[in-house]
Amino acid sequence: MSERPFILVTNDDGIHATGLRELVEVMQFFGDIVVISSEVSMSGKACGITVDEPLRATPVEKIHGVPTFKCNGTPVDSVKLSFNGLHERTPDYVVSGINHGANTSISVIYSGTMGAAIEGGLHGVPSIGFSLDDYSRDADFSKAKLIVAKVFQSVVENGLPPFTCLNVNIPKGKPSGIKICRQANGKWVEEFEKRVDPHGREYHWLSGYFRNFEEEAEDTDLFALKNNFASVVPVSVDMTCYKTVEELKTWNF
Amino acid sequence: MSERPFILVTNDDGIHATGLRELVEVMQFFGDIVVISSEVSMSGKACGITVDEPLRATPVEKIHGVPTFKCNGTPVDSVKLSFNGLHERTPDYVVSGINHGANTSISVIYSGTMGAAIEGGLHGVPSIGFSLDDYSRDADFSKAKLIVAKVFQSVVENGLPPFTCLNVNIPKGKPSGIKICRQANGKWVEEFEKRVDPHGREYHWLSGYFRNFEEEAEDTDLFALKNNFASVVPVSVDMTCYKTVEELKTWNF
Repeated sequence: MSERPFILVTNDDGIHATGLRELVEVMQFFGDIVVISSEVSMSGKACGITVDEPLRATPVEKIHGVPTFKCNGTPVDSVKLSFNGLHERTPDYVVSGINHGANTSISVIYSGTMGAAIEGGLHGVPSIGFSLDDYSRDADFSKAKLIVAKVFQSVVENGLPPFTCLNVNIPKGKPSGIKICRQANGKWVEEFEKRVDPHGREYHWLSGYFRNFEEEAEDTDLFALKNNFASVVPVSVDMTCYKTVEELKTWNF
Repeated sequence: MSERPFILVTNDDGIHATGLRELVEVMQFFGDIVVISSEVSMSGKACGITVDEPLRATPVEKIHGVPTFKCNGTPVDSVKLSFNGLHERTPDYVVSGINHGANTSISVIYSGTMGAAIEGGLHGVPSIGFSLDDYSRDADFSKAKLIVAKVFQSVVENGLPPFTCLNVNIPKGKPSGIKICRQANGKWVEEFEKRVDPHGREYHWLSGYFRNFEEEAEDTDLFALKNNFASVVPVSVDMTCYKTVEELKTWNF
C-alpha cells in the first residue's frame, strides 16, 4: 500500500467545475487522491444529507488521472460515502473546493463547500474548505493555488484539533498574504424577484445582497478579504452559545 | 391590524406531519399564525437554500383555520419567503417542528427543523426548534405541547439575544422538567447498506447509529433527554472556534 497520504477532494460546484480540477492539481503534490462529487451544482446545500433516497456513486472519467466518482447526493453525502467503503483506503484529509465564490461570514452555514469540510472534521481528519472570491466559471485560480498549497502544508505539519475544520477564502488576483480570522457578523438581505409564469402562477427567484454588521473589525474574514488577504477561520461543530447558556439558567423553569 | 404577535410556524417533516399541526395548536394561544412548509419531507436539509431553481409558495387548505402555504423549497427558504413579502405581516417569532425525532448533539448541523430556527434568529426575531424524541408518524405530542408552551412563554417574557435561537428536545412520555444544556459531543457513525438494483447497479442507503463521546456529562442535551428532561440549548450562528484561532496565530504564515 502507498505511503503517501490519501486525500478526498470534493466540492459543491460539481464534477465539471474548474475549481475542482485546480484543487486536484495542487493536492497531487501532497498525496494520492480520490475525487467524489456530483454532476450538478450543490451550492447552498449546507450540511444537508440525503435521508429519503438511495445514494449512487459511479466511477467516471478520471480528473488529472485520479479515480473520480460522480455521486447523486450532497457534498456531505460524498464525504460519508468516502469514509464508508466506497473505495479501499480511508481518507487522511478532506479538501473541498476550490469554490467559485467566497464563503465568508454567515455563508459558512449555507455553503455546501463548507458542509463537506465540516463533515471531514467530524470524521476526525484535518479538513479544509477553499473558496475564491470570484463567481465566474472561468475564474483564474493560478494565484489561489499557491495559497491552497501553503495552508495545506501548514495543516500537514501542525494538524488540526478534532471536530474542527478550516474555512479558507482567497481574494481575486494576487493575495498580499494570509490572516487568521474569526467569522464576521453579517447576513444576507434577501430580495426575492417575483415573476409570473406563462400559466399565470407566481414564482420567486432568491436574490439579495450581503450586509456586514462590523465593517471596521480587523480580525474578521470579510476585513481580510477586502484588504486582499486570504482569510483562514477555524470552524467548530459545537454551535452552543455558551454566554446564553448562563443567561438562560436565570430563567424560571 | 391585529395587536397579537405574528408567528411563523414551519417544520421539516412537511405540511401533513402531525407535529406541525400540534405546534400550530399550541401557538394559537400566543398569537396569529402563518404556516409555510413543504409537501414532502425536508429532513436532513440543514441550513440548505435553493439557489438554482425558482421558489413557489401556494396557499393550501388551512391547518386549524390559519393561513397555510406549501413551498417547494427547504425550511430555510420558507423562512426567507416569510420575511420577504409572501404575506402582509412580518413574523415576530419563528417556531419550527414539532419534529418527529430528536435533534440533539451534532444533529443540529443536519436538521432542517433547526435550519429554520437558525434562519429565524438571523432575521432578528426569537426563534425555536422543537423536537420530540419519537420518530413514529403517530407519536403522542400531548405532553410535549406543554413543554412547548412553557418554553415559548419564557421566550416571550425574556426575549433572546440576536443571532441566537433555541434547540428544544423533548422526551417521549411525561417529561420530568426542563434543563438548560450545551450540545453534547457526539457523532453519527454511518453504516451504509449496499444493495444492487434490478439493472445490476449498486446503490447505498444511509443508515447508522449515534455515538455519544461524553455519556457522563450532565450538562449536555443528550444527558438531559436520557434522564427524561426536555433539553434547551441556545444555538449561535458564529461557528468560529476561538480557541483554535489563538493556536493558528502561532503558525508560520
